[in-house]
Amino acid sequence: MLILNSHVLAHLAILAPGLLGASVAKAARARNAARSITIWARRPETRDALRAQPFADTIADTPADAVRDADLVVLAAPVEKIIELAVQIAPALKPGAIVTDVGSVKARICRECAAAMPPHALFIGSHPMAGSAKSGWENADASLFENCTTFVMQPENELQVSAFAFALKVASVCDFWDSLGATPVIVTPSQHDEIVAHISHLPQALATTLAALLAKKNPEWRDYAGNGLRDTTRIAASDATMWVDIFQQNRDDILRALDACQAELAAFRDALEKNDLPQLRARLETGKQFRDAL
Amino acid sequence: MLILNSHVLAHLAILAPGLLGASVAKAARARNAARSITIWARRPETRDALRAQPFADTIADTPADAVRDADLVVLAAPVEKIIELAVQIAPALKPGAIVTDVGSVKARICRECAAAMPPHALFIGSHPMAGSAKSGWENADASLFENCTTFVMQPENELQVSAFAFALKVASVCDFWDSLGATPVIVTPSQHDEIVAHISHLPQALATTLAALLAKKNPEWRDYAGNGLRDTTRIAASDATMWVDIFQQNRDDILRALDACQAELAAFRDALEKNDLPQLRARLETGKQFRDAL
Repeated sequence: MLILNSHVLAHLAILAPGLLGASVAKAARARNAARSITIWARRPETRDALRAQPFADTIADTPADAVRDADLVVLAAPVEKIIELAVQIAPALKPGAIVTDVGSVKARICRECAAAMPPHALFIGSHPMAGSAKSGWENADASLFENCTTFVMQPENELQVSAFAFALKVASVCDFWDSLGATPVIVTPSQHDEIVAHISHLPQALATTLAALLAKKNPEWRDYAGNGLRDTTRIAASDATMWVDIFQQNRDDILRALDACQAELAAFRDALEKNDLPQLRARLETGKQFRDAL
Repeated sequence: MLILNSHVLAHLAILAPGLLGASVAKAARARNAARSITIWARRPETRDALRAQPFADTIADTPADAVRDADLVVLAAPVEKIIELAVQIAPALKPGAIVTDVGSVKARICRECAAAMPPHALFIGSHPMAGSAKSGWENADASLFENCTTFVMQPENELQVSAFAFALKVASVCDFWDSLGATPVIVTPSQHDEIVAHISHLPQALATTLAALLAKKNPEWRDYAGNGLRDTTRIAASDATMWVDIFQQNRDDILRALDACQAELAAFRDALEKNDLPQLRARLETGKQFRDAL
């Protein structure tokens, strides 16, 4: 956890806002965290609707127009569109501009977006661990990032870049998230992808698998569900399209997490089959200790 | 779902009350669902403490004393103590008495408790799908059973018993749970054990396995947990001793549920490894449909 105090208000541009992007705008407005807020949305109808919103000062007609004066650009598009947007805005970025994003997978995005930047601008990926069952800018929430872990990417190899200058820019991005109420955490993209494979993508795979298994059973069983099943499967209700993209983008790390989980589950089954009660108890107690400490 | 209207107030005895047993007493008192409530607890200190509670009319010193006048006896002990209690009270039961329980595994309990009954009394197992992170009679809650699915056991083979007389008694037990606000559901013990293996015990095994896997990782990762991980692992915080008993008692059904789940998880992994996006999407959408319908 890193909290900086030297926050400087910036001209902020937010591109392709959905729930997260519009929540960044609302939170920045509510907390006076930006000097101005410019938004570009892909669909003309969305741009028209956004013109009436108090969290936008300017609605731009193109991504390039949106970023021209921006100190900080937030690419809020779905994971598979972020790189494309970075390439599109690169020629319009002003000297010293920082570009970040809110995508939930980082290694490929950071590599390709960094490569797309002009020499006078930097891409520093972000991932706020926020979300909601709802999506779309209409459901944006100014308090979405309060106490929310937000990963900010440091370079994989510090020798590749001017370490000191880069560190200052990473600190600025941390500072921005801090100003929205979030808790910034600095990691490398590969650390990030390993962490979220375990604490976010693996839980999604398990919730989906359990729900998909039960979907094959007698539909009456659904009426009998207690809170345990409701909690354990809650995230199975998430948007399928978004998750296909995430699974695909973080495939290797998720496969490794799934392998480890399958081995754990097989060991649990084995202990039960052999009636190895000390082993079964040890697993239950380890799980309980972990959950109690969350 | 079956709701009867012909409720007749009964002399109620509750043996070995923890959270569930004392909640039965509180709910019965609050809803005037029993003519009198007699309680027996194993520890003398608990009996003393219960004497001061408005939900008990009489505190008995022995299980036999507790059940002598009872129309309905609720054995609220942990799963592995229920059969022992049934054997102990059998000689003291009055003609027409019904004995039930609140254990979360049913086949063995129903078989052995039925065998322990005298000819003039019947054992009809129950399982309210209620619970709480808290345990102990001090945490009892009169509203614990409101809208709570409560399984009531019909015999496996109706020819073995006088079907009509038995059906009336099953209806009385359903009626009692209904009077506490619960939703009774009639199933056989083997159906029950298959259902709960899937909708309760398998989710517990998965939550425990995920939590036990993450317990091996960098402790800092815990600070990054979002609501998805919190929800998915919530029941991993349950009491380990209780769950060792449940896993042991419902071993065969849980092993079958685990096998089915491992096969689903392997198929998910396979789809991801092969980049079979339609298959991955189909699994996510099936899971979402199931969860949305809960």
